[in-house]
Amino acid sequence: MYTEPTTFSAEEYFATQPPPPTLDHDIEKVREFIQRQNKEGRSVVLVTSGGTTVPLELNVVRFLDNFSAGTRGATSAEYFLKAGYAVIFMHRQFSLQLFSRHYSHSTNPFLDFLEIDGPLSDANNSNDPDAAPIISVTPEKRADLLEVLSMYKDVHKAGTLHTLTFVTVNDYLWLLRAVSQEMALLGRKSLFYLAAAVSDFFLPRQKMSIHKIQSGKGSLHIEMDQVPKILKPMVDEWTKEGFIVSFKLETDDNLLLPKARQALERYGHQVVIGNDLHRRKFEVVFVSRKESEFDEYWLRIDLGEHHGPAHHAKEIEEDIVAELVKRHNAWIEKGKL
Amino acid sequence: MYTEPTTFSAEEYFATQPPPPTLDHDIEKVREFIQRQNKEGRSVVLVTSGGTTVPLELNVVRFLDNFSAGTRGATSAEYFLKAGYAVIFMHRQFSLQLFSRHYSHSTNPFLDFLEIDGPLSDANNSNDPDAAPIISVTPEKRADLLEVLSMYKDVHKAGTLHTLTFVTVNDYLWLLRAVSQEMALLGRKSLFYLAAAVSDFFLPRQKMSIHKIQSGKGSLHIEMDQVPKILKPMVDEWTKEGFIVSFKLETDDNLLLPKARQALERYGHQVVIGNDLHRRKFEVVFVSRKESEFDEYWLRIDLGEHHGPAHHAKEIEEDIVAELVKRHNAWIEKGKL
Repeated sequence: MYTEPTTFSAEEYFATQPPPPTLDHDIEKVREFIQRQNKEGRSVVLVTSGGTTVPLELNVVRFLDNFSAGTRGATSAEYFLKAGYAVIFMHRQFSLQLFSRHYSHSTNPFLDFLEIDGPLSDANNSNDPDAAPIISVTPEKRADLLEVLSMYKDVHKAGTLHTLTFVTVNDYLWLLRAVSQEMALLGRKSLFYLAAAVSDFFLPRQKMSIHKIQSGKGSLHIEMDQVPKILKPMVDEWTKEGFIVSFKLETDDNLLLPKARQALERYGHQVVIGNDLHRRKFEVVFVSRKESEFDEYWLRIDLGEHHGPAHHAKEIEEDIVAELVKRHNAWIEKGKL
Repeated sequence: MYTEPTTFSAEEYFATQPPPPTLDHDIEKVREFIQRQNKEGRSVVLVTSGGTTVPLELNVVRFLDNFSAGTRGATSAEYFLKAGYAVIFMHRQFSLQLFSRHYSHSTNPFLDFLEIDGPLSDANNSNDPDAAPIISVTPEKRADLLEVLSMYKDVHKAGTLHTLTFVTVNDYLWLLRAVSQEMALLGRKSLFYLAAAVSDFFLPRQKMSIHKIQSGKGSLHIEMDQVPKILKPMVDEWTKEGFIVSFKLETDDNLLLPKARQALERYGHQVVIGNDLHRRKFEVVFVSRKESEFDEYWLRIDLGEHHGPAHHAKEIEEDIVAELVKRHNAWIEKGKL
């Protein structure tokens, strides 16, 4: 059976696709967070991070995914916090998170640097927690962990981080719209850092199969529709004063600048950060408009710049965030004229 | 462009699809591990865990995935270790792992139960690690963590766990073949616990697009071929004496038993464990052959059975593993007749 692909406008999308069940609850918490930050005079950045999925079945067994561990988003969010921003971190479930990203279960498992002090005896059979031996971080890992842990505790105390999770591209689109609308309250003090790897395609609920697609009937055909271009209504309707930064990831170098310029032209937002799949850890390009011209600003780091422990290696996100904070502040000032 | 789907036999698959670049290196380590366990007289179980991906591009941005956090595999592997088995844990990169699974970054983040003892002062600017304040596990989390950490350390010391990772279905197939062939050395003392969620479909390298598929040209069409039925050569050629347990996940209850029986009939291995997507945490069915009949053994747990801290909640994998160890031992004994 072949069905003609449908092109959805954002409006049609939201009129036909169901919201995630926790949307209202999630947004109520976002609203409280934004109101508090606004009262305390902070700028707020929405950082989106990780890949979105497109489930092929309602009882989902298989899905299309976009490659992203969430490094760009989680790392940048830490630098935004350091720069004094409040952060709404909207990330794919199980993608990397701030702080704990330094201790992934595969590369630097935290169990490796814990040690049991004192004899085990039969203390673990006791119900008195004070009778259990002390477990502490090995001396050689202490200094390393201390910086991360201190910042983690400070941020929790200050209440400047709010976390939201998505899985599907549908979750993502509904959340993005609702959060953008809430952030309108902040006027120019809102920054959007859209680093999530969002699917360009989706399967409308009306076309999804209910149960697991059976194999044994030959090959698999999937026919997907295009996800509406969400930046357009974001700029024009949801958050008219927000400073919006989107990302363009390509694997073909020749497409990077043309695609970035095309996005700016089409949606009229502030910055597109272009990155090549294989060079994204040390090279990005900021594309923006300067009157009727395009402005390109290349940012590169030397990956050899290592000093101190592993997590002190230079991260390009430090420079990306510094540059954006500068541009965002100029944008805020301009709004006061 | 429409290309006729190809049906690959396992032999054709390996003749046309390239092995992962680290295969030889990975298998050398597996061989050493198996030889050592064999010398020390242990049974070895291969536990596969997590979902496989099917990349759509050579420079991969998008991929098809199979839903699986890796809970079944990681949990079962812990119980196999407790039962005295050596474990080869072959899992999807970033899926849940043994031990650390109890402390996922989202549900029980380990940074939450670490505390900094002593004043921070400027110790973090010092290069002397002994000058840094001590970081230890909070008393209320100690007893909980102690059991996990002790087992983690014991297993590392005994050298009874070997970990391998895969990402794509191609990685998985090549690794599975090579590990099975190595495990043949163990004769009947080898158990295969194939809990990974393996794609039924794949995109032959010859049909993959080199660069990121561009959107903006309408909808996405994907046309995939069927993955060869790998259990057949596994049983007939690679590991003739191994005890093989495969899994069947369905969302439609009516298909569970027929599909499980069909698999046994087709491949002639020992057990199919059938599970329904929504009931898999508390109900599974073992399907096996008894002479010319099918034998069905339902295993259910009461999810209310909680005693003690969170990670002491009853896990169905404990009972699955106990049942399999019994059956595997009977199989080993039968081989001695």
